[in-house]
Amino acid sequence: MADLGNDHLVQSDDPEHPANLIPRLCKQFYTLGWVTGTGGGTSIRKDEYVYIAPSGVQKELMKSENMFVLKYPTPKYPPSAREYVRKPRDLKPSACTPLFLAAFERGAGCCIHTHSQWAVLVTLLVEKLFGREACFEISNIEQIKGIPKGPGKGMLGFHDTMRIPIIENTPFEEDLTEFLEKAMEQYPDTYAVLVRRHGIYVWGDNVAKAKTQCESLDYLFQLAVEMHKLGLPWT
Amino acid sequence: MADLGNDHLVQSDDPEHPANLIPRLCKQFYTLGWVTGTGGGTSIRKDEYVYIAPSGVQKELMKSENMFVLKYPTPKYPPSAREYVRKPRDLKPSACTPLFLAAFERGAGCCIHTHSQWAVLVTLLVEKLFGREACFEISNIEQIKGIPKGPGKGMLGFHDTMRIPIIENTPFEEDLTEFLEKAMEQYPDTYAVLVRRHGIYVWGDNVAKAKTQCESLDYLFQLAVEMHKLGLPWT
Amino acid sequence: MADLGNDHLVQSDDPEHPANLIPRLCKQFYTLGWVTGTGGGTSIRKDEYVYIAPSGVQKELMKSENMFVLKYPTPKYPPSAREYVRKPRDLKPSACTPLFLAAFERGAGCCIHTHSQWAVLVTLLVEKLFGREACFEISNIEQIKGIPKGPGKGMLGFHDTMRIPIIENTPFEEDLTEFLEKAMEQYPDTYAVLVRRHGIYVWGDNVAKAKTQCESLDYLFQLAVEMHKLGLPWT
Amino acid sequence: MADLGNDHLVQSDDPEHPANLIPRLCKQFYTLGWVTGTGGGTSIRKDEYVYIAPSGVQKELMKSENMFVLKYPTPKYPPSAREYVRKPRDLKPSACTPLFLAAFERGAGCCIHTHSQWAVLVTLLVEKLFGREACFEISNIEQIKGIPKGPGKGMLGFHDTMRIPIIENTPFEEDLTEFLEKAMEQYPDTYAVLVRRHGIYVWGDNVAKAKTQCESLDYLFQLAVEMHKLGLPWT
Repeated sequence: MADLGNDHLVQSDDPEHPANLIPRLCKQFYTLGWVTGTGGGTSIRKDEYVYIAPSGVQKELMKSENMFVLKYPTPKYPPSAREYVRKPRDLKPSACTPLFLAAFERGAGCCIHTHSQWAVLVTLLVEKLFGREACFEISNIEQIKGIPKGPGKGMLGFHDTMRIPIIENTPFEEDLTEFLEKAMEQYPDTYAVLVRRHGIYVWGDNVAKAKTQCESLDYLFQLAVEMHKLGLPWT
Repeated sequence: MADLGNDHLVQSDDPEHPANLIPRLCKQFYTLGWVTGTGGGTSIRKDEYVYIAPSGVQKELMKSENMFVLKYPTPKYPPSAREYVRKPRDLKPSACTPLFLAAFERGAGCCIHTHSQWAVLVTLLVEKLFGREACFEISNIEQIKGIPKGPGKGMLGFHDTMRIPIIENTPFEEDLTEFLEKAMEQYPDTYAVLVRRHGIYVWGDNVAKAKTQCESLDYLFQLAVEMHKLGLPWT
Repeated sequence: MADLGNDHLVQSDDPEHPANLIPRLCKQFYTLGWVTGTGGGTSIRKDEYVYIAPSGVQKELMKSENMFVLKYPTPKYPPSAREYVRKPRDLKPSACTPLFLAAFERGAGCCIHTHSQWAVLVTLLVEKLFGREACFEISNIEQIKGIPKGPGKGMLGFHDTMRIPIIENTPFEEDLTEFLEKAMEQYPDTYAVLVRRHGIYVWGDNVAKAKTQCESLDYLFQLAVEMHKLGLPWT
Repeated sequence: MADLGNDHLVQSDDPEHPANLIPRLCKQFYTLGWVTGTGGGTSIRKDEYVYIAPSGVQKELMKSENMFVLKYPTPKYPPSAREYVRKPRDLKPSACTPLFLAAFERGAGCCIHTHSQWAVLVTLLVEKLFGREACFEISNIEQIKGIPKGPGKGMLGFHDTMRIPIIENTPFEEDLTEFLEKAMEQYPDTYAVLVRRHGIYVWGDNVAKAKTQCESLDYLFQLAVEMHKLGLPWT
């Protein structure tokens, strides 16, 4: 792989710089059980760049210098104009990259992909209970208020029903992209898409929103699994 | 929002100062799973001030400078006399504020609000098993001795029945206040009120008591859920 | 409470000194969920002294200066000869003290008391399945090899049955002492006694043995609860 | 035990040196619940040496100076040529040693042994559901892609069935060796062998692969147990 240089893009003393923030987030996600065994991934868009954690690196050991950087001038630019401006030697780009870009096309500032077991179990329970086409629905739980109603619409209310679409998994992660994009069109208000037997993609306007929405969703998935064990309905 | 200044109220080298203590507690509560996704909150009363964690900030990243401060001359002062003396720029005050004040009216020195899943599951199980009006009851578990019998009455004994009232959730957190206050009147000995499908409010004479009582309650809720799974009765 | 002085007994640069070790262990036990809300306790015997964590202090915040110290000349000395040589001002001695001393009478170098939920659930399951007099039994699990067969007898083997006696709880912790001592007589090979609806006392020849035996037991209790949920028998 | 000297073999400033890496890994495995109460073990092969964590030491307190070192010239050398070149005074070599060597014979660079409860529960469930001879099988879960198809064959695909052989436990750990080796012959593509009622041995070409494969397997075992509780089939 040709060395593109541009190391300065991942060197910063600012702890909030994406190249410093992604390793810190990955370490935290590891502790939360979201990125076990190099699973999952994280990407941040800032100014005209997209920063992406590499494939196959232990998430709790990630370093700034491991980051891939993609030139991403504006969300409405043709996707063909995207190109890597930094590729760490000996590392592979994340297979999640096209899925992260799909979120950035919708204006996201950060996208998180986890293999959370609660997410996986919820996709399996939904299929068993309601069939393959169904999405996950839950209502009347306070934590729902941590999830947005849709772009520019504020947050869901306690009595609202939260709906997260579920797409089927594909053998190759990049092949999920078209199904993720279809779900985004079908559910234009959603900030997350579950992938059956796989995990979840969650995005947000910025890092704090993506992360806290991902946490609120994971809380709701865990609660839903425990509710099901105790014979308590979700809606 | 007008800048009220008064930054000195949250600047102290004393690790036990409320402005330093609240961030430390919030970080610990995050690890315990009590304040996932900016849920929950914490407030401390000290001398003539009440310190309150803001709304919408990631709890494990809270800083002293994020604290709201309310002038709170004495517990028996008319509530209308309360006014903010410090408001961090760009942050919103916690929607829990009137509920925290209700606890301070009863002489509390600290009030903690969590979204603990064990608390939520207990409120759902109580409704399923005993109906909507019921409170949570458990007896003959050693950890009950970590909960006070009532103000000035010492701690509960092993054979005592611990009763925690449950109120119904409301779409807006501040609307819980009147129901919380009613529960406080109906259960004058309680130091905690569960909120159905939401979480719990726990208070204590000081920070150590509020925190350890909150831990003991959470232990009992978790145990109660596991006991129910195993077919073991609570009383 | 009279100040007995003797602060030098808890001041040492050696991280393995009991006054430094107890706070470190308590913090670790807090993380393991064994001493939630000031529950549980720890004591170490070294040379002619017994060091005991105080009552009512948050276990993860324990400090060397919080330690009680008891003169304890030899294990075979009459118990009446025991006397405090250091009492921290404003703290209460642990109600577990006579139970710790019962372990030291048997030659223990360290005794740990936890409120582990797995221990509590196992005592409840044993009562439900086999009645009140029964002890907890499990066999054919590798981790059993972490538990001694009895003083000077080496460790249990994989095919051996591990038996941990269970005593009934009493309203006051110190009243457990006579039942603990009876269980010690009836089960002379045991290094642990479960207390129904309360937790467990575990001791060992030294700190490392007490702690690792306590861990192995907790592992086996958790496994036993999960096995029961899955319909798998313990022996 | 004769002092063989050679302390320089475990002294290095390189954090990636096996003598520094094993303690760090053991601490992490302790937090993951894999090596409770001195259970489990870890070994790394580097150049002509094999580094092995000792028996009976608390895994979260392991130090470089506790490491045993074995001369291990090439994987194809006759096993009789292996000899210790460093033995820490007062410590016992791990009973897992011959099992680690069996993995190194197959070209492994690192071997990890855990007592994970999820691994133990899976061996018990497989026996209950499919009988004693069966191996654990799961398919159509994304995390399967973290497990290799076999030496030089790339990783398993989403639709592939992952098979992990299970051997019966023996009273003495070293007696497992012949059964482990038989399983390795019968399943030449496997990088892991479950031991019924005991735990798992996982190996990999290097430390990162052994650790991340161990994590992926543990994730799949935990998921499988939870799926079984929820009535969801594994394949």
